[in-house]
Amino acid sequence: MAAVYAGPVQDLIDELGRLPGIGPKSAQRIAFHLLKLGRDDALRLARAIAEAKERVAWCVRCFNVSEGDLCGICEDARRDPSVVCVVEEPRDLVAVERTGEFRGRYHVLGGAISPIEGIGPDQLRVRELFARLEPEGITEVILCTNPNIEGETTAMYLARLLKPLGVRTTRIASGLPVGGDLEYADELTLGRALEGRRDVDA
Amino acid sequence: MAAVYAGPVQDLIDELGRLPGIGPKSAQRIAFHLLKLGRDDALRLARAIAEAKERVAWCVRCFNVSEGDLCGICEDARRDPSVVCVVEEPRDLVAVERTGEFRGRYHVLGGAISPIEGIGPDQLRVRELFARLEPEGITEVILCTNPNIEGETTAMYLARLLKPLGVRTTRIASGLPVGGDLEYADELTLGRALEGRRDVDA
Repeated sequence: MAAVYAGPVQDLIDELGRLPGIGPKSAQRIAFHLLKLGRDDALRLARAIAEAKERVAWCVRCFNVSEGDLCGICEDARRDPSVVCVVEEPRDLVAVERTGEFRGRYHVLGGAISPIEGIGPDQLRVRELFARLEPEGITEVILCTNPNIEGETTAMYLARLLKPLGVRTTRIASGLPVGGDLEYADELTLGRALEGRRDVDA
Repeated sequence: MAAVYAGPVQDLIDELGRLPGIGPKSAQRIAFHLLKLGRDDALRLARAIAEAKERVAWCVRCFNVSEGDLCGICEDARRDPSVVCVVEEPRDLVAVERTGEFRGRYHVLGGAISPIEGIGPDQLRVRELFARLEPEGITEVILCTNPNIEGETTAMYLARLLKPLGVRTTRIASGLPVGGDLEYADELTLGRALEGRRDVDA
């Protein structure tokens, strides 16, 4: 096989294969795609990576991605500083932003509590969250971690610490996805949907 | 949204989204993964792309990827020059090499005939294949294009041109995959398997 894949091709396949969600087959496909591309088009990706690593850092306040000390959201004076939405990763923040429903600030934990992976509160930006409460006058923390075991554990952990401080602590609702089908819902989701039922205003 | 994704992050997501098989969600996931990675780890991918574009070219004879004028296979004196396996892309060549069953040389067409995509024989390395027949003393051409409409069309097109030249022209067999299940085979594949049936040597 050594003769088939020249060194740099194998190196490229190896590096691509390290990306999340990219298996060996996809890595190979992408590598050959890049080799077939015009030089400029392929190097644009290389430059975009270098550029992003060069210019993008983490917001010192909420740990969102940011080009300056503070991210665009933290710098935006129209955002309500008293409500903070706690998410696991910047991509979750983006998902919440897309709803257009939230006008407060964020706090990115950098993951969720996972004993199996050896991630405890100390590996997350938990201390940084509590340090924000007083100076920013935060009155509500919305726990917006993922509705899976790790996310729920993290939410419960934070709720237990936040409640005694008199900060309103809320958790996003679990239930059937909009447009979803009752028949195909799993029991856990449907159970949550029942549990979280609300009065109908007629 | 402009404030959420800083310029370089969006640029990176856009560039990743242009890769084959990478949708917008995967592009976002990979981008944040790269941003979270250590600087050196992320830049290794950028360098691997640049390096591959710098050092890897196409074999002047068979159009496989190559670091020199000729690829490793064309340079290998133990390969039989009289049998040529015609494939669409370098990744198909790799698939054939993996079988360990083929000891001849290759010819990479660079695609398949596809009227819908506007790809005719002139866009492929067909002329280059015919130019090899005489000087290399090629006696058999194995048509190893994909068993789909484009690949079959290409194989039939080449077969029609090759036959009058007295070159043995063969096509890889279509049929049930090894370990496959008759019950779950689609009609076309099963039909091909019947059509391509062989006498059993007892």
